[in-house]
Amino acid sequence: MSSDKVRLALLGCGTVGTEVVRLLHEQSADLTARIGAPLELVGIAVRRPGRQRGSDIDPALFTTDALGLVKRDDVDVVIEVVGGIEPARSWLTEALRAGKSVVTANKALLAEDGATLHDAAAEGGADLYYEAAVAGAIPLLRPLRESLHGDRVTRVTGIVNGTTNFILSSMDATGAGFGEALDEATELGYAEADPTADVEGFDAAAKAAILASLAFHTRVTAADVFREGMTGVTAADMASAKEMGCTIKLLCIAQRGPDSAGTDSVSVRVHPAMIPRSHPLAGVGDAFNAVFVEAEAAGQLMFYGRGAGGTPTASAVLGDIVAAARNRLSGTRAPSESSYAHLPIRPIGESVTRYHISLDVADRQGVLATVAGVFAQHEVSIATVRQSGREDDATLVIVTHGAPDANLAATVEDLRALDIVRSIASVLRVEGGA
Amino acid sequence: MSSDKVRLALLGCGTVGTEVVRLLHEQSADLTARIGAPLELVGIAVRRPGRQRGSDIDPALFTTDALGLVKRDDVDVVIEVVGGIEPARSWLTEALRAGKSVVTANKALLAEDGATLHDAAAEGGADLYYEAAVAGAIPLLRPLRESLHGDRVTRVTGIVNGTTNFILSSMDATGAGFGEALDEATELGYAEADPTADVEGFDAAAKAAILASLAFHTRVTAADVFREGMTGVTAADMASAKEMGCTIKLLCIAQRGPDSAGTDSVSVRVHPAMIPRSHPLAGVGDAFNAVFVEAEAAGQLMFYGRGAGGTPTASAVLGDIVAAARNRLSGTRAPSESSYAHLPIRPIGESVTRYHISLDVADRQGVLATVAGVFAQHEVSIATVRQSGREDDATLVIVTHGAPDANLAATVEDLRALDIVRSIASVLRVEGGA
Repeated sequence: MSSDKVRLALLGCGTVGTEVVRLLHEQSADLTARIGAPLELVGIAVRRPGRQRGSDIDPALFTTDALGLVKRDDVDVVIEVVGGIEPARSWLTEALRAGKSVVTANKALLAEDGATLHDAAAEGGADLYYEAAVAGAIPLLRPLRESLHGDRVTRVTGIVNGTTNFILSSMDATGAGFGEALDEATELGYAEADPTADVEGFDAAAKAAILASLAFHTRVTAADVFREGMTGVTAADMASAKEMGCTIKLLCIAQRGPDSAGTDSVSVRVHPAMIPRSHPLAGVGDAFNAVFVEAEAAGQLMFYGRGAGGTPTASAVLGDIVAAARNRLSGTRAPSESSYAHLPIRPIGESVTRYHISLDVADRQGVLATVAGVFAQHEVSIATVRQSGREDDATLVIVTHGAPDANLAATVEDLRALDIVRSIASVLRVEGGA
Repeated sequence: MSSDKVRLALLGCGTVGTEVVRLLHEQSADLTARIGAPLELVGIAVRRPGRQRGSDIDPALFTTDALGLVKRDDVDVVIEVVGGIEPARSWLTEALRAGKSVVTANKALLAEDGATLHDAAAEGGADLYYEAAVAGAIPLLRPLRESLHGDRVTRVTGIVNGTTNFILSSMDATGAGFGEALDEATELGYAEADPTADVEGFDAAAKAAILASLAFHTRVTAADVFREGMTGVTAADMASAKEMGCTIKLLCIAQRGPDSAGTDSVSVRVHPAMIPRSHPLAGVGDAFNAVFVEAEAAGQLMFYGRGAGGTPTASAVLGDIVAAARNRLSGTRAPSESSYAHLPIRPIGESVTRYHISLDVADRQGVLATVAGVFAQHEVSIATVRQSGREDDATLVIVTHGAPDANLAATVEDLRALDIVRSIASVLRVEGGA
């Protein structure tokens, strides 16, 4: 490449792409000063070039031939904000193999098949940056990739989906049920028309895989992540959480530790969980994201900010563009993928968690003894029991100590089969406490 | 240098240095995998080699000749955890000019004369890393230096001193006065025998200078920082803050904006301030640090973690060592100092702030009118007034809207001269709200 400028190709020009173009334009002088050379946008690949995208963009930049754009000799850095597996993977693989730096916000692709991209980057000696793929504007991946490389990360607990955090924060604040809170989120533009990827935890699971890969120097894919959505969280659950001094968040949890055989391993899961209000993540409201990192030497760290939105995401993309451009000008590369640890993935059944179980039971003599017996049988220790109601119907709320998830699941299964248990009102994991 | 290992010289072996040595030893295999070559500690400069420093350290490594160690041909990276201006500056300048990478935790030196170090680094083509100098373990400088380089930071608000945050958190929780809370902090090891640097804000001011330099691409020194300690914060102030739904924190605030003549400029200050409990910084308790960053595109970000302590600080030092070592192996350098913006420093008098003023006044007809007249005369708009007490003594608590600090200071001066004002019980700035 010529060293007098750094030439960019943009793939996709939706919400994020438009903002990237705007910021490139508006901050042009600052970016040039920080990089040491100007950036030049040489082409934008879109599906429908005719669509209105803000009057500032030169229409001559648009093309429908993304692969052609990627292959152009005068492109130094390819920015991808299209999303999805294909054709993005083909485009980016092509770019990386040809030695072009890639900046992408594509969490789905990185979580499903990051290996292909990393391998292509290694082959082409190119940079692969993806800060915008997790927690939008929050500078999180660079600290994990670089700042904490002299430390050993033991656990990452994150609120990485803004839509579900908005819904749960609203349920916590107003006592609304899931449906009502979802309607509000949709109305305000926080939830998409089809909210499945968010509320069922698919989006968070992709981010969890990326975070776990970086934190533990191990390739983790979305398929390795245990995933449970948050559509089952009820107003009653939230009320129960409040009584315990907790709130409910959809968490992604990536943890390093020994499995049942004592082998160092990684467990990655996404599910709603109760956390104490005193936990720094409990105060993360609205559509904000936050990631809580625990490391052996650094202790507890938290990163907080906007996880979505065109402008915040574009900020992360721009930061990566500056880094990639600087590297090209100085003929260097960022640290490449670090997956030397190759830790095995621990199944969810072996994850040690705590459960909060709410049971509707017959108010008979000996009910508690019977119920407690089921827990004991599965070697699950009970931390607290609260009984409410009298007469015919009583509710037992049981919180356990930590136990393997499989034992807890088996306990719930056996409770369900008991005559004296009318129904299991809710089962929620409890995190972030002693 | 030989590419089969990276050789380190450590200057200083107190609390942080000892932890650095321990972590280098304990995480040796992981560090080698992450760097691609082993690290070797070739020497440790100390004043008293005989002192006990943990049994794991080979006594042959110790020397009292720091400069001699720095000059050794077989040293690739110099790690400085001694602190203070001299002789640290001479050692590090020598190292950098000779092309050796430097990792330092020396906030005082960076804040007083960072320019000399940066110039020496440029001269020698060497890396200068100092993540541990601000907010200990929190990966903060790398995000500011790199991740946000495609964005425009407008404001940085930080709790960057653990000692004073412990004291203020304790005053908030228990209603204790400053003296009592300081005693507790000293007893628990959170405050040093001479707490001046912490409670008078010198430590925070040094960190503020470093943060402002990075955030605004402008050289800012400790002398540019307006500094007011927190020894004057009373139990009554804290109670008054609580009544307003606020707490009091010692904040460092670095802000970019137009001065009175409309010129883009930077203001940097350290002082105690009331902030609303709803602000993310209000919940930062104990000896934790947190830095709240506002950027045009990214919006609000917060970084939270342990700001001090041997092990957390060593985590940051290790992260920098890994980065410096990788760069040496690949023959590259990190982005160097970015000070292209050369923004002027705005004096405190031109900073727009809000004041919370508590006055003991005679309870006479027309007192409020007289007091309000003084505010109006200085063009300071009053947001709220609360009057308490009756009889002979009354207290007026006034919160202003934003106004230039000079106008506020002049208002307080004139109030002090009024007959009807018996005393000014407290003057506190108010931050973080509308």
